[in-house]
Amino acid sequence: MLLIEMVEGGACAAVFTQNAFCAAPVLVAREHLTKQPRWLLINSGNANAGTGEQGLADTQASCVAVAGLNNAQAVQVLPFSTGVIGELLPMPKIIAALPAVRANLKADNWYKAAHAIMTTDTFAKGYSKVIEIEGYKVTITGMSKGAGMIQPNMATMLGFIATDAKISQELLQRCLSAAVEQSFNRITVDGDTSTNDACVLMASGQSSLAEIVEGSDAMALFAEAIQEACSSLAEAIVRDGEGATKLIKINVQQAITEVEAVQVAKTVAHSPLVKTAFFASDPNWGRILAAVGRAGVDQLDVSRIAIYLDDVCIVENGGRANSYTEEAGQAVMAQEEISVTVILGRGKIEQNVLTCDFSYDYVRINAEYRT
Amino acid sequence: MLLIEMVEGGACAAVFTQNAFCAAPVLVAREHLTKQPRWLLINSGNANAGTGEQGLADTQASCVAVAGLNNAQAVQVLPFSTGVIGELLPMPKIIAALPAVRANLKADNWYKAAHAIMTTDTFAKGYSKVIEIEGYKVTITGMSKGAGMIQPNMATMLGFIATDAKISQELLQRCLSAAVEQSFNRITVDGDTSTNDACVLMASGQSSLAEIVEGSDAMALFAEAIQEACSSLAEAIVRDGEGATKLIKINVQQAITEVEAVQVAKTVAHSPLVKTAFFASDPNWGRILAAVGRAGVDQLDVSRIAIYLDDVCIVENGGRANSYTEEAGQAVMAQEEISVTVILGRGKIEQNVLTCDFSYDYVRINAEYRT
Repeated sequence: MLLIEMVEGGACAAVFTQNAFCAAPVLVAREHLTKQPRWLLINSGNANAGTGEQGLADTQASCVAVAGLNNAQAVQVLPFSTGVIGELLPMPKIIAALPAVRANLKADNWYKAAHAIMTTDTFAKGYSKVIEIEGYKVTITGMSKGAGMIQPNMATMLGFIATDAKISQELLQRCLSAAVEQSFNRITVDGDTSTNDACVLMASGQSSLAEIVEGSDAMALFAEAIQEACSSLAEAIVRDGEGATKLIKINVQQAITEVEAVQVAKTVAHSPLVKTAFFASDPNWGRILAAVGRAGVDQLDVSRIAIYLDDVCIVENGGRANSYTEEAGQAVMAQEEISVTVILGRGKIEQNVLTCDFSYDYVRINAEYRT
Repeated sequence: MLLIEMVEGGACAAVFTQNAFCAAPVLVAREHLTKQPRWLLINSGNANAGTGEQGLADTQASCVAVAGLNNAQAVQVLPFSTGVIGELLPMPKIIAALPAVRANLKADNWYKAAHAIMTTDTFAKGYSKVIEIEGYKVTITGMSKGAGMIQPNMATMLGFIATDAKISQELLQRCLSAAVEQSFNRITVDGDTSTNDACVLMASGQSSLAEIVEGSDAMALFAEAIQEACSSLAEAIVRDGEGATKLIKINVQQAITEVEAVQVAKTVAHSPLVKTAFFASDPNWGRILAAVGRAGVDQLDVSRIAIYLDDVCIVENGGRANSYTEEAGQAVMAQEEISVTVILGRGKIEQNVLTCDFSYDYVRINAEYRT
């Protein structure tokens, strides 16, 4: 269990899963977000999803308990859960542990905190950077968790990022939403969007930098820094994808729309045949071509398509490239990080999706999880 | 390699893959279909897909060769290929083998034929039934192949069905398209729609039954029999899904549209987390619930949803069913055939999708295939 406390007067933005079956804590956190929250309560091991009315009551009770310890209101607490779906939270255990958790609050506990939220993660995922805006230091520190049930949709598994910048809630929310769209929403391990995804960005306003306002240079620098933090934490999730042995970047170019580019990239990224070929280091590029072909792009002219593995052209004009050799493909596939570039030859939009391969260990982990 | 010869004067209907990267033989067969085809030439091991102009020329050359042996036109030959994508056909070998293949044509060679078209299939898939219409016997015999890259879209991997009924090409095509939509298009192994899918229905007209015409009772009986043949051959493909240890039937009820019902069923059927849970015989039903929730159904009211494993209710009113016990779930999951029923509580449409589990062997087969 992890408790995060924010100073008074800060701003807090968040995005949540778009899964229709969103977990009880997601429903509650979404509602509390507008009530100037100051505490985040996170448990791992139990998702408190698919738990109906009792799950909702339990989440609310945990907010009440945190508020009680702080002479605050329950609406000032945002609850988050991650773990097995369908089990009720062990409430007596949670309530009993809260005083000790609260007593342990420390400003430099980020490292321990990143470990506290792990489930099937094999390493803790953290990020911290000090940037300078108008001569003033601004710190951005965050953590994320997640390894399976990963295809975030408007959010990630769990991501918590904090900064000492001063910024309005509205602007902070816009900044987070934009960053998440191009980071957490562009990764996938297995295509399974979780019931519990959430990503939170807190801004304490403690930096000496004046308030960041819309349209300013400071805003541009800040947004870029938040984007970088989100991208770094999102990439860490894919690197730790369940059973993953490789990091695959799918880059789609010359699409007409962003939706179409992401659709092609995700179809390739979700193909079990493509993912097992990467695991085997087998340049079985026909599977990539087949995935592009079934991505559902309207009026796709395959004769304009080119596909690259790193800088090795495998497909040109819709067919096997003349210059392609099995050896060249093999050399790329043997690497631990591989980029696949799909050039659609239709428009000007480019998008990236990060994913990982599909190994025996993915099956093992997910066949054994819960038992 | 397999050669199928039809008597003169029969009718031939076919459906082909919707993958934009369709293979050279698909392009040629689609064009030849209207030219009263009499021969089907099928090779396995090489898909002749992603092979550009040369692939097209090779397919055409093989049609010319078959026609030459029969003093016929090349357009009377439908070519089909299945196997590895991106390699050119071994043309000299194919041309050299054709005379022996032709000499081996026999009316009762269906059993051998079903074996000839296998790739990663572990058993041959056949079907034969004699039905009676208006007192006359009508025979329907067919075969299919496929185990991976299976999410047929308007067709299957390869399916060949023949009947001695007399029926027009137009009516035969309508009959096949309808049957395929509810059979081959409702199965999935890995979500990967192949570049080479094709299903053919041939009608020789040799039965003593008068020509089957639109709107007749005979048509209804014939359509039902074709549907049964397609469903049987489609189910055989899922049973032989790469690495499969279980057959899973996803039944979605009370949907508003067929599209929405299939969308929910396929999201569950494609979820790697659901498929690995089935492999592990683990009643980890939260994964099914999460998949339903991310299926993209507009305005889904989760509080109306119920989910069953066989007849065990696991979710009611959007949450864990009060009556559910882990033991009851475990008992269902231990079976080799499992049905998952998702009741959406929105409309009156019901649809079924068949799939299989996801095992170590799926990874092994697809990591090793091609090598």
